[in-house]
Amino acid sequence: SRSINLAVIPGDGIGQEVVAEGLKVLSAVLPQDVKLETKEYDFGAKRYHATGETLTDADLEQLKQHDAILLGAIGDPGVPSGVLERGFLLKLRFAFDHHVNLRPSKLLPGVATPLAGQPEIDFVVVREGTEGPYTGNGGTIRKGTEHEVATEVSVNTAYGVERVVRDAFARAQARPRKKLTLVHKNNVLTFAGHLWTNVFNRVAREFPEVTTDYIHVDAATIYLVTDPGRFDVIVTDNLFGDIITDLAAAVSGGIGVAASGNINPSREFPSMFEPVHGSAPDIAGQGKADPTATVLSVALLLRHLGYDTEADRIDAAVTADLTERAAGPARSTSEIGDALAVRVAG
Amino acid sequence: SRSINLAVIPGDGIGQEVVAEGLKVLSAVLPQDVKLETKEYDFGAKRYHATGETLTDADLEQLKQHDAILLGAIGDPGVPSGVLERGFLLKLRFAFDHHVNLRPSKLLPGVATPLAGQPEIDFVVVREGTEGPYTGNGGTIRKGTEHEVATEVSVNTAYGVERVVRDAFARAQARPRKKLTLVHKNNVLTFAGHLWTNVFNRVAREFPEVTTDYIHVDAATIYLVTDPGRFDVIVTDNLFGDIITDLAAAVSGGIGVAASGNINPSREFPSMFEPVHGSAPDIAGQGKADPTATVLSVALLLRHLGYDTEADRIDAAVTADLTERAAGPARSTSEIGDALAVRVAG
Ligand SMILES: CC(C)[C@H](C(=O)O)[C@@H](O)C(=O)O
Ligand SMILES: CC(C)[C@H](C(=O)O)[C@@H](O)C(=O)O
Repeated sequence: SRSINLAVIPGDGIGQEVVAEGLKVLSAVLPQDVKLETKEYDFGAKRYHATGETLTDADLEQLKQHDAILLGAIGDPGVPSGVLERGFLLKLRFAFDHHVNLRPSKLLPGVATPLAGQPEIDFVVVREGTEGPYTGNGGTIRKGTEHEVATEVSVNTAYGVERVVRDAFARAQARPRKKLTLVHKNNVLTFAGHLWTNVFNRVAREFPEVTTDYIHVDAATIYLVTDPGRFDVIVTDNLFGDIITDLAAAVSGGIGVAASGNINPSREFPSMFEPVHGSAPDIAGQGKADPTATVLSVALLLRHLGYDTEADRIDAAVTADLTERAAGPARSTSEIGDALAVRVAG
Repeated sequence: SRSINLAVIPGDGIGQEVVAEGLKVLSAVLPQDVKLETKEYDFGAKRYHATGETLTDADLEQLKQHDAILLGAIGDPGVPSGVLERGFLLKLRFAFDHHVNLRPSKLLPGVATPLAGQPEIDFVVVREGTEGPYTGNGGTIRKGTEHEVATEVSVNTAYGVERVVRDAFARAQARPRKKLTLVHKNNVLTFAGHLWTNVFNRVAREFPEVTTDYIHVDAATIYLVTDPGRFDVIVTDNLFGDIITDLAAAVSGGIGVAASGNINPSREFPSMFEPVHGSAPDIAGQGKADPTATVLSVALLLRHLGYDTEADRIDAAVTADLTERAAGPARSTSEIGDALAVRVAG
């Protein structure tokens, strides 16, 4: 019989609330014969304040035992900027080699967008997750003086670029439009830019059916607001991906519905699924958070583990629920979770 | 008697057409007693194809003799990506220490925006222009092999950050709302992020009237489409500035009206003014290009040289013309230039 052994990391702020709804929907969608085991971990600001720890080697050993990880949100105004980000989130992405950071953007019916004319939006960003300016390379000399110099080194390897580019081509190949856009800044960042561009063009030969395109990251932000329909699959570097996926989330309904997967396609280590939004301490504990992004992240998780039918059921339930929501009164976090759980079970 | 000794670099594609209109308006707005001398330079793709040169030391010596530089656009599909960007545009910005890259965004009446509800937009981005990932630091090993490693080094100095941050505070202080937002990614790029944040907080003490704010660059792209009215002055790093100013241009009327100044406030070297748009080879030579961005860049140029009244007249003429344009039939590049020249003279 089948089973899913899930690590659950609610984290900080609204993370707690949205993860509860994600699990509610997950339980409701799974067939009887699939055994769901969950283990909750207390990572985040609370653990950091209590112990000074963010993520130890022993923690990583434990997390490795799971099939996948569901994360709510990590971050707290009481913790200095960077501590939990580098010490937990990025540490986990690097330790488990989450090199495919998958972020779909689809403007669903009834969902508000800041763009005029309700354009059609349906694309996926494949953001590299283990290289670029995120490696922590760099340093500071003469800190705090008027002669301080601080550097950040973007590290890009043929190995790292090729595997994520190939993953993106395969995803483009599997979609009806079969189009892949490379986003970079190869006219200025010429060292990394040439590597990305050459690898992209080389791998393209293996996918003759996929139409390819190149856009500078600055121009990409223009197209994301003037012509988002032109995108099908985008592949890009870690930092550019961070920036354009927030913008992509904003134009396709907001971070309330933006899901993401930090994926290790080799399955050597568990992949991690999380909403794009943060811990939003200002609305935490009030039942105001939208759990939809977490529920959609659960769908990505299921798809990664091979439960495509169940993932489809969640996606359909969310689409139906959003249409209904547009017409009805505001609902609380758990009301939305309840409604989605009923739909996926039905 | 007063005089302006201007270097004119029309460049490639539509650069030629828009610069002609910029000069037309400049001549029309200047009082009789100001002597305008212009010298045209042939930098860009043509010169590169003919001589292999982009910008020589002798060129720089000549350009140094001018009070300011007006640039159209540089770039051509026949030149490999990066050659003209690094070899001309960035070389000039670095050689003349253009550390204040000024990019105002104002949604003018009658101008179309991709955003719903025609929001109020009126902010200025002060983008650092001589540091960050633009320095050309970095390199490649094992090029073209499966073991290639390419790095890009973002270089940030207290000296470089402080001067641009101080410039931005002074600009915020001079505006009615007196608000300055630092945009960075200090939770991930912690070395550069701490330097920027510390310098920002230190300089803030000298400007007690200015309200300050910090936003991560990814979140900034969200606000630029959901709540652009929150911004007054933004100060940011070279690469983040590149990205968010294209987005800012897109939401506030498009790159047809986005002006920029590459400014050396010390006036040790001439500053350079250019539209944010590129050479647009697809529409070059057809009289379709909108010269408004270049005309507004001329206004920035005049303001930099102390001709505030004339700069104000150009801004007012553009505002009036855009309102008229929204109602009337499409006009050609030179028709727009003519109309603006008549207005500023009147
Ligand atoms: C919180 C931060 C480290 C993270 C990132 O920059 O990747 C976040 O912005 C994201 O997009 O997941
Ligand atoms: C053409 C390119 C080098 C330039 C930049 O990246 O600065 C452009 O995008 C700009 O914004 O002026």
